[in-house]
Amino acid sequence: MSLLMDNGSSVERVTATLRGLAAALPAGSKLPSSRRLVGDLGVGPVTVQRAIDALVADGTVLTRPGAGTFVARATRTQTVDTDWQRVALGASPVRAEGVVSALSMPSRDVLDMSRGYLDLTLQPSSRLAAATARAARRPEAWSVPPVAGTPELRTWFAQQLGADREDVLISPGGQGALSTVLRSIVPAGSPVLVAVPSYPGAIALLRSAGLVPIPVPTDTDGVRPELLERAFEQTGSRLLYLQPTYANPDGHVLAADRRRPVLEIAARAGAFIVEDDFARWLGHGPTPPPSLLRDDTDGRVITVNSLSKAAGPSLRIGCVVARGPVAQRIAGLQVVDHLIVARPLQEAAVELVTGAGWNAHLRSLSAALNARAARLVTALNRELPDCTFTRPRGGFSLWLRLPRGTDDVELARRALDRGLAVGPGRNYAVAEEDAAHLRLCFAALPEQHVDAAVRILADSF
Amino acid sequence: MSLLMDNGSSVERVTATLRGLAAALPAGSKLPSSRRLVGDLGVGPVTVQRAIDALVADGTVLTRPGAGTFVARATRTQTVDTDWQRVALGASPVRAEGVVSALSMPSRDVLDMSRGYLDLTLQPSSRLAAATARAARRPEAWSVPPVAGTPELRTWFAQQLGADREDVLISPGGQGALSTVLRSIVPAGSPVLVAVPSYPGAIALLRSAGLVPIPVPTDTDGVRPELLERAFEQTGSRLLYLQPTYANPDGHVLAADRRRPVLEIAARAGAFIVEDDFARWLGHGPTPPPSLLRDDTDGRVITVNSLSKAAGPSLRIGCVVARGPVAQRIAGLQVVDHLIVARPLQEAAVELVTGAGWNAHLRSLSAALNARAARLVTALNRELPDCTFTRPRGGFSLWLRLPRGTDDVELARRALDRGLAVGPGRNYAVAEEDAAHLRLCFAALPEQHVDAAVRILADSF
Repeated sequence: MSLLMDNGSSVERVTATLRGLAAALPAGSKLPSSRRLVGDLGVGPVTVQRAIDALVADGTVLTRPGAGTFVARATRTQTVDTDWQRVALGASPVRAEGVVSALSMPSRDVLDMSRGYLDLTLQPSSRLAAATARAARRPEAWSVPPVAGTPELRTWFAQQLGADREDVLISPGGQGALSTVLRSIVPAGSPVLVAVPSYPGAIALLRSAGLVPIPVPTDTDGVRPELLERAFEQTGSRLLYLQPTYANPDGHVLAADRRRPVLEIAARAGAFIVEDDFARWLGHGPTPPPSLLRDDTDGRVITVNSLSKAAGPSLRIGCVVARGPVAQRIAGLQVVDHLIVARPLQEAAVELVTGAGWNAHLRSLSAALNARAARLVTALNRELPDCTFTRPRGGFSLWLRLPRGTDDVELARRALDRGLAVGPGRNYAVAEEDAAHLRLCFAALPEQHVDAAVRILADSF
Repeated sequence: MSLLMDNGSSVERVTATLRGLAAALPAGSKLPSSRRLVGDLGVGPVTVQRAIDALVADGTVLTRPGAGTFVARATRTQTVDTDWQRVALGASPVRAEGVVSALSMPSRDVLDMSRGYLDLTLQPSSRLAAATARAARRPEAWSVPPVAGTPELRTWFAQQLGADREDVLISPGGQGALSTVLRSIVPAGSPVLVAVPSYPGAIALLRSAGLVPIPVPTDTDGVRPELLERAFEQTGSRLLYLQPTYANPDGHVLAADRRRPVLEIAARAGAFIVEDDFARWLGHGPTPPPSLLRDDTDGRVITVNSLSKAAGPSLRIGCVVARGPVAQRIAGLQVVDHLIVARPLQEAAVELVTGAGWNAHLRSLSAALNARAARLVTALNRELPDCTFTRPRGGFSLWLRLPRGTDDVELARRALDRGLAVGPGRNYAVAEEDAAHLRLCFAALPEQHVDAAVRILADSF
């Protein structure tokens, strides 16, 4: 009978029974053996194992291989006096809230226009799983990789970005790459120009490193050259951060006729440009513009790219392309920060992106994002005529300008009460703005839910 | 015939043939199809694929899925003028040399007493591969994990370290954890006390973050309390970095009767202690001492641990245990630095360490390290009576004090010429020392090669 009874409800029943048993016993007590439980509870061994796994997962019990299963020590209530830490630590430069909110899963009955990762239907999860399983079984996969990354993966990124392989450094995800790059170039206390609105994770990185973000406004063609020039003059900054291709949050593209002026203005300032190319494969049309790197003739542009947006958030693989002495500084700081990048993930990434299904995946991803954006645009025009926006050309989100007097945080709170999670625009600013915005993200929202989401938003004003 | 001929030498032959073909064609040219090559060259499809893989790996060709294989563009010679960067970048705080040398594989005919990672015979590679393959195939493995890590892995680390699960933060490797922790506590420019000799990776992290390492000497019982007290008074430092258990490079253990004084001295200084517990599972005897965390009553100790030393360098999984407000600051900075830790690696780690073979692996690892250390001690006593050392109680290395007047870098260079890679001691110092040392690392050197290695070293004086 045992295996036949191994279904979800029996697992839940056994879990509840064992949880009650664990609660009744003192910490450290041994639970009956799995064999004994199989007999006593009349269920299969798989059911017992799954119940124990669930209790290990939530910390109720712990298993010692070969010895058995024991009741875990209860989590102690924090009673130590740590107030001395508040004096020792002083003011904090670390502001993670805007970053955490884009990572947190809303509760199940909420429509999610907040998280910046693809829902599972758009992730190539089964091919990612197969690629990783193959990579992990190679004997060399667990050894120390070259500190710059495996040659195969460097070659692939170089091809994608129009770079030389020797200029490519594999990094542990795009965010890790940005962290290393932004800390490599200018010392703490320096001003850094940021094309706004901008990615909260980059703003938080700058502030955490003691750098001072200075806003430079964008319009639908990207950063405004005349204001960029003035900002360099006014601050003496030696670093500009921007997302020329499908910027977060508004999906704009730096216009072709602005690429040369931006490079020239940075050159006159003796400054580097960090190109955050996170959305290269998230265009809603056929072809993304080339990376700004391609127009760079003097090692001015440092490009950061990542696979996690197009492939899945847990594939922590990205890259940095840099030329000249700065490449050595970045590579040196990355070694100091991380030693190496997990080789199994590097090899899995190569398997995935050179596999036959990758281009098809990118095409269907682009089509799905385009369909969601189109549906969102139609619904907003219908339901929210007082809000303004420009249709994004790529990426995950639309940047909605709210009517004068609207408070973005209050509006987001009311929408959440009604079952819709959205991102308040102020997380994307580095200084005062002339209008409030919401970021409407459609990475995790299936197309058929777009209309309902916009109706909830309209009802929340 | 095809599959029968698929051996190493035919792969090499086909690789050489295709390399010649690629060299003769202009960049961008398409190579004959795989099917055509199978016929023309009289080998199997697997052989052709492996040859193409090798050429992709070294950048000779590139494949476009569905389109074919093409001759890659040659790497451009660097001709751009990047001298402006040297003015923009100024002096560099990044010194990665001492770290890179411990990661680099010496050439094949050199005995390796330099690298700080286990040779493959001591790594549980096949179980790691199986665990990862299983983890990668779970549908949820590729989703966003909780930012603090999966509950299962936090629970396991908490059990190992005697901590509460809620105080455990899963990190992307021990080095990544150290980087975040050391940058979380005191601002750039601050003095940080370092028990010396010390791990070059920690020294490099401090310097790269603009922190100022201040040496505090150790003896065979660990950091010297009276000098620690004076260093706190003299510098006003609020942070001490030490490795109480099997310190790198000399394998000492902080004596039981020094644990309380060290904690009290730090408390009087209002300072944090970062306990780098990297070697917990690398003892040469039966039981490691408890983490210093266990003696901590006021949230003073922040413990960093890692699986990569005991399991394999490419399992980039570590943890931070911290209590009080500092835990929030560290967790916040980690989110800003990394967003999340790759979930498949977290799940693979849980599979590995809760599997039945883990404890047996740790026992055999301990026995192997003990045997290597014993052999090394005997050989050094026999061959190098003028050098002094204390037998390490755990860890990967022995710290050899050289006779007066010996130059550690010169000696290491001469040893390398004779076929032995060792680590110059100066990488482990933060200021002038009274004697030169070598670090002799036996992580990657099988026991049967120890005698030969020591003979080479003796011949190199």
